[in-house]
Parts: sequence; C-alpha cells; structure tokens
Amino acid sequence: MANDNLAAVLYGIEDLRLEQRPIPAISDDEVLLKMDSVGICGSDVHYLVHGRIGHFVLTNPMIIGHEASGVVAKVGKKVQHLAVGDRVACEPGVPCRYCEHCKAGQYNLCPDMVFCATPPYDGNLTRYYKHAADFCYKLPDHVTMEEGALLEPLSVGVHACRRAGVGLGSKVLVLGAGPIGLVTLLAAQAMGAEQVLITDLVQQRLNVAKELGATHTLLMNKDDSAEEVAKQVHKLMGVEPDKSIDCCGAESTTRLSILATRSGGCVVIVGMGAAEPKIPLINALAREVDIRGVFRYCNDYPAALALVASGKVNVKRLITHHFDITETAKAFETARYGHGGAIKVMIHVQPKDTNNKV
Amino acid sequence: MANDNLAAVLYGIEDLRLEQRPIPAISDDEVLLKMDSVGICGSDVHYLVHGRIGHFVLTNPMIIGHEASGVVAKVGKKVQHLAVGDRVACEPGVPCRYCEHCKAGQYNLCPDMVFCATPPYDGNLTRYYKHAADFCYKLPDHVTMEEGALLEPLSVGVHACRRAGVGLGSKVLVLGAGPIGLVTLLAAQAMGAEQVLITDLVQQRLNVAKELGATHTLLMNKDDSAEEVAKQVHKLMGVEPDKSIDCCGAESTTRLSILATRSGGCVVIVGMGAAEPKIPLINALAREVDIRGVFRYCNDYPAALALVASGKVNVKRLITHHFDITETAKAFETARYGHGGAIKVMIHVQPKDTNNKV
Amino acid sequence: MANDNLAAVLYGIEDLRLEQRPIPAISDDEVLLKMDSVGICGSDVHYLVHGRIGHFVLTNPMIIGHEASGVVAKVGKKVQHLAVGDRVACEPGVPCRYCEHCKAGQYNLCPDMVFCATPPYDGNLTRYYKHAADFCYKLPDHVTMEEGALLEPLSVGVHACRRAGVGLGSKVLVLGAGPIGLVTLLAAQAMGAEQVLITDLVQQRLNVAKELGATHTLLMNKDDSAEEVAKQVHKLMGVEPDKSIDCCGAESTTRLSILATRSGGCVVIVGMGAAEPKIPLINALAREVDIRGVFRYCNDYPAALALVASGKVNVKRLITHHFDITETAKAFETARYGHGGAIKVMIHVQPKDTNNKV
Amino acid sequence: MANDNLAAVLYGIEDLRLEQRPIPAISDDEVLLKMDSVGICGSDVHYLVHGRIGHFVLTNPMIIGHEASGVVAKVGKKVQHLAVGDRVACEPGVPCRYCEHCKAGQYNLCPDMVFCATPPYDGNLTRYYKHAADFCYKLPDHVTMEEGALLEPLSVGVHACRRAGVGLGSKVLVLGAGPIGLVTLLAAQAMGAEQVLITDLVQQRLNVAKELGATHTLLMNKDDSAEEVAKQVHKLMGVEPDKSIDCCGAESTTRLSILATRSGGCVVIVGMGAAEPKIPLINALAREVDIRGVFRYCNDYPAALALVASGKVNVKRLITHHFDITETAKAFETARYGHGGAIKVMIHVQPKDTNNKV
Repeated sequence: MANDNLAAVLYGIEDLRLEQRPIPAISDDEVLLKMDSVGICGSDVHYLVHGRIGHFVLTNPMIIGHEASGVVAKVGKKVQHLAVGDRVACEPGVPCRYCEHCKAGQYNLCPDMVFCATPPYDGNLTRYYKHAADFCYKLPDHVTMEEGALLEPLSVGVHACRRAGVGLGSKVLVLGAGPIGLVTLLAAQAMGAEQVLITDLVQQRLNVAKELGATHTLLMNKDDSAEEVAKQVHKLMGVEPDKSIDCCGAESTTRLSILATRSGGCVVIVGMGAAEPKIPLINALAREVDIRGVFRYCNDYPAALALVASGKVNVKRLITHHFDITETAKAFETARYGHGGAIKVMIHVQPKDTNNKV
Repeated sequence: MANDNLAAVLYGIEDLRLEQRPIPAISDDEVLLKMDSVGICGSDVHYLVHGRIGHFVLTNPMIIGHEASGVVAKVGKKVQHLAVGDRVACEPGVPCRYCEHCKAGQYNLCPDMVFCATPPYDGNLTRYYKHAADFCYKLPDHVTMEEGALLEPLSVGVHACRRAGVGLGSKVLVLGAGPIGLVTLLAAQAMGAEQVLITDLVQQRLNVAKELGATHTLLMNKDDSAEEVAKQVHKLMGVEPDKSIDCCGAESTTRLSILATRSGGCVVIVGMGAAEPKIPLINALAREVDIRGVFRYCNDYPAALALVASGKVNVKRLITHHFDITETAKAFETARYGHGGAIKVMIHVQPKDTNNKV
Repeated sequence: MANDNLAAVLYGIEDLRLEQRPIPAISDDEVLLKMDSVGICGSDVHYLVHGRIGHFVLTNPMIIGHEASGVVAKVGKKVQHLAVGDRVACEPGVPCRYCEHCKAGQYNLCPDMVFCATPPYDGNLTRYYKHAADFCYKLPDHVTMEEGALLEPLSVGVHACRRAGVGLGSKVLVLGAGPIGLVTLLAAQAMGAEQVLITDLVQQRLNVAKELGATHTLLMNKDDSAEEVAKQVHKLMGVEPDKSIDCCGAESTTRLSILATRSGGCVVIVGMGAAEPKIPLINALAREVDIRGVFRYCNDYPAALALVASGKVNVKRLITHHFDITETAKAFETARYGHGGAIKVMIHVQPKDTNNKV
Repeated sequence: MANDNLAAVLYGIEDLRLEQRPIPAISDDEVLLKMDSVGICGSDVHYLVHGRIGHFVLTNPMIIGHEASGVVAKVGKKVQHLAVGDRVACEPGVPCRYCEHCKAGQYNLCPDMVFCATPPYDGNLTRYYKHAADFCYKLPDHVTMEEGALLEPLSVGVHACRRAGVGLGSKVLVLGAGPIGLVTLLAAQAMGAEQVLITDLVQQRLNVAKELGATHTLLMNKDDSAEEVAKQVHKLMGVEPDKSIDCCGAESTTRLSILATRSGGCVVIVGMGAAEPKIPLINALAREVDIRGVFRYCNDYPAALALVASGKVNVKRLITHHFDITETAKAFETARYGHGGAIKVMIHVQPKDTNNKV
C-alpha cells in the first residue's frame, strides 16, 4: 500500500489546506477505505466560512468531507460482509451502539455519535480513511462511485420523506430546489406521492426539478406574502398538500409550509435557519399540523441505495462539476458561490472513473 | 313535557342573558336532552370577554356552554342505544360524516363540524337541548352528572396524552396546573406514565396536582429563564422528559417545553397563546423533538368515561364551585376571576343531585 | 330519461338472469348513475357457483356486479362535488357513518355496511344505479371508464400493501399472479418496493407480471415443498422478503408466506381459502412475523385513482375480454373458466367507449 | 473475592448438577455480578425435561437460569453508569449491535443474540456471572432483589401488551393465569386497560388474578367450545375485547382468542404450543384481526422496572416458594409439578435478604 495520504484539512475559518496525514490503523470491526468520490455539502462550506455550525465548533484542524464512497483496502478480523476491492458507499456517522437511542432504533440521536467532519471528528476527503464496516454499503457494479457518494444527501431526502410519512397518494409541497430539495423530490416520487410541487427563487433550479419529475413548480419572489403563495399552491395542486417539506429553513418558508398544509398534515423542516424564528404556531396547532425536524438519517442508506440501483431515481443529474482532490480549493469556491449553476460539486480522490464499471 | 326552556344566551361582549328559547325538535338520529350539569370552560369566558376566539366570531346571540350532561327526554326513530331516562354525557361536536377527515377517523378536523357554543352554533347551558344520539354516552349509575360533564375537559387531556404518545414508562412534563393541566396529569398517569412533573405559578394549584398524584411539582416565577427551569426539571426527574405537554401556551412555556424535552421526544401544545410566537425551533428540529397541537378530541370520550367509571381518576376533585342556572352571571364571574380558588365551576340546570344515584 | 333498466340478476346457484328493474329514486346525499363498465370479480363468480360466500348467503334475487363506473344522471340536493354528466368510479360499499369503526377511520369493518352484490344488497351490473355521492370519485378526462371500474380491484391491492406496510426499500413477495396478485404488484411498486417477486402455477400469468414490472417471477408446482420454495425465493431475491402478500389463500401459499418472510416482517393474506387451515404458526410467532388480513379497502380509492391518473400503473393491461351487458352469461363463463387466458373480463353496460374521451 | 463459583449446570435430560465453574473474566463493557436471586421459568423446566426448545438443542453442559438479579462485583473500564456494590436486574440477552435488526430497534430479533441459558450460552444460576453492563439495570433501594429477578417475566408481559397496542380504554382478554398471564394482566392494567378478563382452568389461579386486579375472571373447562366461551366473554365484558393475549398457546386458546376478538382488533400469542395448529384463520382475516407473536422483549426492562419501583404493580405476589441454590433440584421439582400451588419459584444464590434494603 502506498503511504500517500493527502487530506483536505480545515484549520480554521477560510483556512483549508492539503496536507499529508498518517494512514489510520483499523479495529476488528472496521475497514480501511481508499476513498474515491466526495461531494461537497452546504455544511462543509459553512464550516469553511464560519468555523462552526450551532454548538459544533472547530477548535482543532479537521479533515473535511462526508458525502463519500471508496474502495475497501483492508478488512478487520470480525468483518464478514466486505472484502478487499469492494466498492462501498460510506454512511458517515457511527453511533455508540449502547445508549437508549441506539437500542431504540434512533441511532441518529445518539449523543456520542462520531460523525465525519463534525468537530472534533475527521471527515473523509482524504486518500485513506477507516470506517465501521457495518456502515459501509457495497455498491452493485452498475452503480458509480459518484452515485455512491450521493447516497448521503439522498438519505437525507429519504429520511425527510419518512419523517413526513409520505406515501401512496401524498400531495407534497417541497420548499427549495437546491440539492436537498431535489433529493427530497426524488424520494417523495419513489414513495408514491401523487403530486410534488416544488418552489424556489431561481427558475433554473425549478427547470431541473421539472426535469426530475416535479408535477408542479412555482417560482417565488423574496417579497411574496406566504398567505398569497399558499393560495397559489392550493390552486396549482387543486388541493392542499398534506405534507410540506421545508428544505430552506428560512422564516418565510417555514411560515409558508405551515399555512399551506392541510389540517391533520405534517410540516417537516430539513433546512435550518434562525435559531428562534417567529412562526404561525397557532395556525399549525389548531389544525393539528405536526412540525417535525430531520437530523441526518437513520436506517435510510439501504433504501437510498435501492432507489439508485433500481434506476428509479436519477441522482447523477445533480452533479454539475467535477474536481480532483488537488483542486479542492477551487471545488469549494464553486460550491460556495454557485459558479456555473453549481448544484452538486464532486471531488475525485482517485482519477474519475478509476473504479466505475459502467 | 314542560315548555320552560330557560337558556343562557350570549348576545355580545359582556352581555350574557337568561331567556326562554323554544324547545328544539329532533331528527331521527337525535335525542332531546333535559340538561343537568354544565361546566364553565375558559373558552366560554373568553367569548364573554372578547366576543371571539381566533376566526370564530360571535355575530348573533348564541347559547353558551359545552361541558355538559343531561337526561334523555325524547328519542329519534333510528336511535337504538338510548332510551328516555338514560343519563348521558354529551360530546359537544357533531361532524359532517362525509368528508375525508371524517372517513379517516379524524372527525375533530372536519371543516363542517357543528360544535356547541362555537359561533354560529348554540351551546347547551339551557333546559332542553337536542344532540346527535351517537355523541351521547350513557353513564353508569355510579357516575354522577357532574362527572359526566367533566368528561369534556378530561377528553382534552386524553387526546393530548394520546397525541403525545404517552405510554408505559413515559416521563411527562406538564406545564400548567389549571383544569386542563390537571386532566392531562390524570390521563398521563392512567396511561402508565412513570413520572409526571407539573409546573405552575401558583402553589395552591400545585398542591391539588400533588394530591391528584403528580410525582413532582415545580413552582415557577414569571421571570425564570427557560434554560434554568429546564435544568431544574431534569434534576427533579433524574432524566429528561420524553413528553412535554404545554397546557398554558405562553411563549415562555412553549420555550420551556422544547428545551426540556429529550431528543426524539414530543412537545404537545394544548393551550393557545400568541398567534405567532418566537420559539427555539432549531433546538427542536435538530433533536427531532416533534411539535404537535391538540384540537378538541376525537374518539376520546369512551376512554374518558372508562377512566371515571373505573374510579382510576378522581375528576370530581376539580370542581370547586356549584351554581344554579339562574345564577349563571355569578358563576361566570367566579370562573373568570378565579374567586375562592376556583378550578372548575359547575352550573346545575336541574337542582343538584336530582339525577345522581350515588 | 329512458326507463330501460336492464339488470343482471342472480336468482340462485347457476341462475343468472337479465331482467328489467325499476330505476331507483335517490336521497339527498345520493346520485343516480347511468352505469358504464362493470368488471367481473372472483366473488361474483363464486356467488353464481355456490350461492354464498362464508356467512353471506343469497336468499333473494340480487343484482350482481360491484367493480363499476358510470356517469352521473341525477344529483341529490345536498351533493356539491358532482354534476350531471360527471364520469365516476363507484366505491361499492357504503357504511353506517355512526358506529365506532366508522368514527375511527375503519369503515370497511362497519357491521352495517351496505355493499354492492353482497346479499341482501343489489350490485350495479344494471343500466341505472343509485349510490352515496361521497363514494363516487370523479374521473379526469384522460382516465377511461374501464380504468374507473378497475379502481375496485386496484384498491384491494393498495389496501393490502398498506396493511403490509410496504414502503421505500421493501422486499415484497406476492403469491399468485391473478388479478389481485397483479394489482398488488402494481401498488407495491408504486409505494417504493425495492423488489417484488411474484409466484404462480401458470407461466403465462408470470409473463404478464414480468411485463408489469415484477423484478422476479417464480413458477411453482403444486407439489413443491414450501421449505424448498422459500429457499428459492431467498436465493432469487438475495434477501428474505420483509413483506409477503398471499393473494391465493391456499394452505400451501400461506405456509410459504410465513416461512419465507424475514423476522419482524409481515404476512398479509388477501385470498381466502379453507376456514381453518393448518399453518406453521410458531414459526411466525417466534420470529414476530405478523399475520394480517385484508377486508376490502378503506380510504384507498383516492390513491388508486391517483395511481391510474398519473400513469404510474398500467391497470388496463389486466383487461383481456370485453362483453356487452346482453352477453353477461358468456362473460361470466369466460371469467369462470379462464377461457382465452382471461385475467379481467369487462362488461359494458353502454356501448364501449361511449363515455371515454381518449 | 472468593473463588467459590457454584453453578447449576444442565448436562442433559433430567441431569442437572451443581458444580464449581471458573469465575469469568470481564471485557471493558461488562460487569461481573455476584448473583442474588434467580427465578425458575417454564423454559428452564422444559430444557430439563426435553433437552431442547424448538431448534435450540442442548448439546453441551449449560448453566441454567435467566430470570436474575445480582450485585456488581467488578466493573469494566468503559462502564460509567454502574459501580461495585450496585444492585441490578439483569436483562438476559445481549444482541450483536451490528445487524439490521439491532439498528432498527428490534434487537430481540438479532440472529446472533447471546441469551442466558439458551444453548449454547450459559445462564446465571451461579455465584458469579459476567454480563454486558448496559443490559444491567440499577435497582432503587426500595426494590428487592427478588423483584429485580421478576423484571424478566414482567418484561414479557410489557412486551406482549405493547405488541397488542394496549392503551387507555382497551378491553383485554388474557388467556391463562400462570406467571405470564399474571404479568400480562399487571402490565395491561398499568397501561390503562378499561377491563381485563382472564381465563384459566384452575380457580386458584383466577383467585390470584382477581386479587391482582382482574376486572373479570372466567373458569374454563377443557371441553368448552371456543364459540360458547367467546359468547360468555362478550357477556361478562359487555363488549368484545379489542385485544386478546393468549398466554397458553394451545390450539383451543388460540382459537378462542380469535373468535372472541373484536373486528379490527389484535390477537397476541405469547405461549407457544403445537408448531402447526389448525386455527380459524379466515375468521381473523375477514375481520382484520391481526395475529402477532412475542419473542422475549426489547427495550421493555426500563418500563418494567418503573412499574415495580412506583408500586403500581405487586409482582411479589407471584412468588410462592423460596429455595437456596444448594436446593436447586427441589426448586425445579416444585416448579415442574406445581407443588403447593407454585406460581413462581425463586432460588437464592446468596442467603435471602442479604442485599435487600427493605
């Protein structure tokens, strides 16, 4: 094995460096991965710009990246379902396995979660990375490494739709047509939604949503009143949506989500905005419209993989840009400023297509 | 049958009159009730003082009252489960039976609900009142008419606990020890809650809660910081509550409910305060603490009746004052200002104990 | 309006007659339908051959037929969502709206259900038929009357999949590729099933299933041991199915369903065979594999209509034969003996395509 | 620490020996327990008599016992919530923590579960026993070691009631008033059941059930027809039970459970009888009465402990006999033949009350 382990390390605000790191040793229940593709997430950019997200604060240099796929390079003694050479998607969080949340099937809420690129834990935009084997999902030959990396955001969409209870016949309103809005759209369709109306401030994004199968799109303006937009939503859909999924998290979109949703329905908020917004709470309460958050995902990777492997969703359409790990700075700039209509920016730790079989 | 049908009619703000009304004729699926006991609810007082609640506005004179019990005086042709002389509790809302909400088992969300003393529909603080027979629940001999009337608030407590998913081993935080807080406490205990901590600003109310079985009480001050009180709650309970039920609805109690609740838990808000409060939404979302409202009740009366009939809950303890229908003005004053430590004020349309068998 | 009301009336075993019946008068909440398409169901044939199904016994002449669509000919006073000329699918059962099941959202279990062509109630293979307006679903222009009739079996498939909890990533085993097996396959796919393996004794039926999207098919023989077939199922799917839906109801298929299902999964049995079969119950219990029945449908028509209207499922593929109402005898013979590879036989009460707009 | 580790070892059918075993060494996430109380379960007796239960076959000598409590004698390095001297109840199964069942909150279905006294794993009727620390639950001072041991069967009752969905207002039928029937009764009451009717063939057992709070008891005879008994159940309860929990598992009790249960209700079968009984399946399916099994418990110990600690249930009433570990043979004989009206037989590994503080 080579001993080159180039890694993209965030030292602080606006201070992202490429440097060599030791190749990690693995435990019996782990695998060593030779990383392949790593997508840039909004949270990665947020750490670069702000050095923190909520109470997660960068205090020591941290390898960035958590939307990733790689190839198994070494296998721990107890690992049975993976072998060297297997191509895998990497679910980035490993819970404690001992607490009440873990035992109750809500491992995403485990307070001792070790999550890639969430301080103080290193991420996986690096040549070699070790990970709990049971959180690595083997990819079928016809699934690309880029798609493997995209299972991470897709799992967020799956989790959001499951939290919302999207099912056959659901009428779904999705707020925001960025990467998370789009994967939520894809998941909602696959779960049997009858209609998905998606909104955004940018027509270009809505065009992609339409291409991916949205039944309706609605271009909004910053100054639109939520009451008026809610009426437009009802008119376009012909009914009130029973599920609204807010992928922006702005006070205005949360407001719209609540006002637009049918009595007895559900508002799921994925995007996170102001810590303490003012919201039309009574409107929701008096109509028993539930408000639910989404924290990452839990038992959602298998379904996300199935969606991609079956060809039911075209998640590749989200990738607009490719960079080599040595171009990490430029990749982050593209993602940060949305240069060239960037939706999802993919960084290749190995030369593109090295491990793709299609 | 006598033709005296004295009724307490709300003509407008601060204008509640006693007057004669015609005795209503019944349909085939209805019964005529000779009313017995009618409790005063906060919403009744609210209509008296403000003439409206949210978008429900009093525009025409309306008989007040909806927490009621009575004796069957006449039976519609199609009614099979009731006979003249049966003592019944009266669930005050009758839905359309045709809409999607009705068919899906959420009749409380029916947009065409006819609900006692919600404009424009008359309530039942009157000698004779007609009602859909299937929303009248026959009382066993050992249950008093006053208890029958109290099934209404108790059903709110049952519905709140069901919405929260209270079950065996739940650790429940109840905010507010007024009538709704107390019935919520009673319901939570009966559903197997391991602990119920109840808060209030008034020690006297907490004493009643303690007497009714609260495992912990916490006296709060208006100026307490929610963060500090949350810590006290955790210390007293030894754990974080997994269900918090806000029976006040003030911005401060909603805030406390969210901060105090365990990740993955649930905040149910029964009390309704400001239309658009500022709340620590991100705190709830990022820990997947769900926020749910309560609108009246739905299929909860039978369980409420079972609770009372079995002797598992002592709902009578809530009644602090009794008045005759002719003293309605005084009764409302007592309820409005909490004179004499008033918790629940009961109005007797027939002389007290006329229809009680115990 | 014409006064021709030709109807297919079952007088007893092997005694199905065409005769004139009076055109029914409607109530305020009903519509009169000029029937268009009526599919023949296995239960229709069963009544013809056996004169009974379980405790439902034909004692008086009864109009047959319940998979139907028609055109609104007259509208009751209270009906608001339908107008004369509307093309509708007709959900054949109307519940009492008053009992606990109705109020709890399980109207299919209402003991006073009036259901088409279930003794003693008339069905709708007749020129004019009256029905509760809220159980008539308006068809969009691009949906044919035949598809409207097929919403009935499709709703069974939807209900079966909902009872099974089919969702994103489900691995579903469907036993039997007759009409109910095929609609179950269609519903499962639309709900996000990752895999659907379908079995049958007849290759021809499996070919249709494959054409409709089954990921795997398995031709069985009557003498196959359930243990062996379960192994084949696991091998083909690569995993154990977490949902098995038995659309045959034979002792052998129920046995296979249980043995093949993953621990913690669910067996749904739609088909009904022997009243008291011998089943490997301990195998299910000790692995917490739940066993659930399906009784018709409940709140499933809207989703079934959405499936068809969106083009997500091709339910028309099930129709193999068309007959005019005057050829009812021949139509039943075709359905009964499966002549010409019959899957679904459709009877046209009006000339084919009279009311189709595509 | 003493090096006496006397253990009750099952060598084969009718061959239970007391012998010395080495004191086990612990891992970092384990504790060493000095055992105190161990109850005898029907399954322990079954292994003694038959040498197997289903596909679990005794092939090597195995320490018996799994309903147990002990005192912490040594603490693994990673263990934080326990200290030497802590009195704990011991949940006897430890799952793999890695498989899909474990991650989904169904660890009782983990195929790699290590469960006390289920071949090939040793149980804990021994002086020293090591166990995963997170499956040891610290007992409050006022809970006795015997009650700690009884959390095991009580957890089965809790799990059964949770599987049945017992809640406020449930009408529950419990078949069998042995130890499992009685703990199910206790759990059902605590979860808010309105009525619990319990049946048995022995009046003495029903007397205990009555004492523990059953609202109705019904003495059955072996030859009673299930149809007749179902009618008696309905008459006694005044309604059909919506939950039936079969704690016998005989063909006759399963039959009765199904026939007696309300449409849309649930039959839970805890007891396990013949592998392939003949049951009235169609009756259940056509009324959507679900059939569910119970395999041990999962996340139920905390609720069971809360029930006992709060004083809500009197589980001590089940203990009829006490023996020292040196009298193990006699203890098993008592449990096996029900000598002296034995319900629960408790074996003391340390002198009775050594570790009790009340």
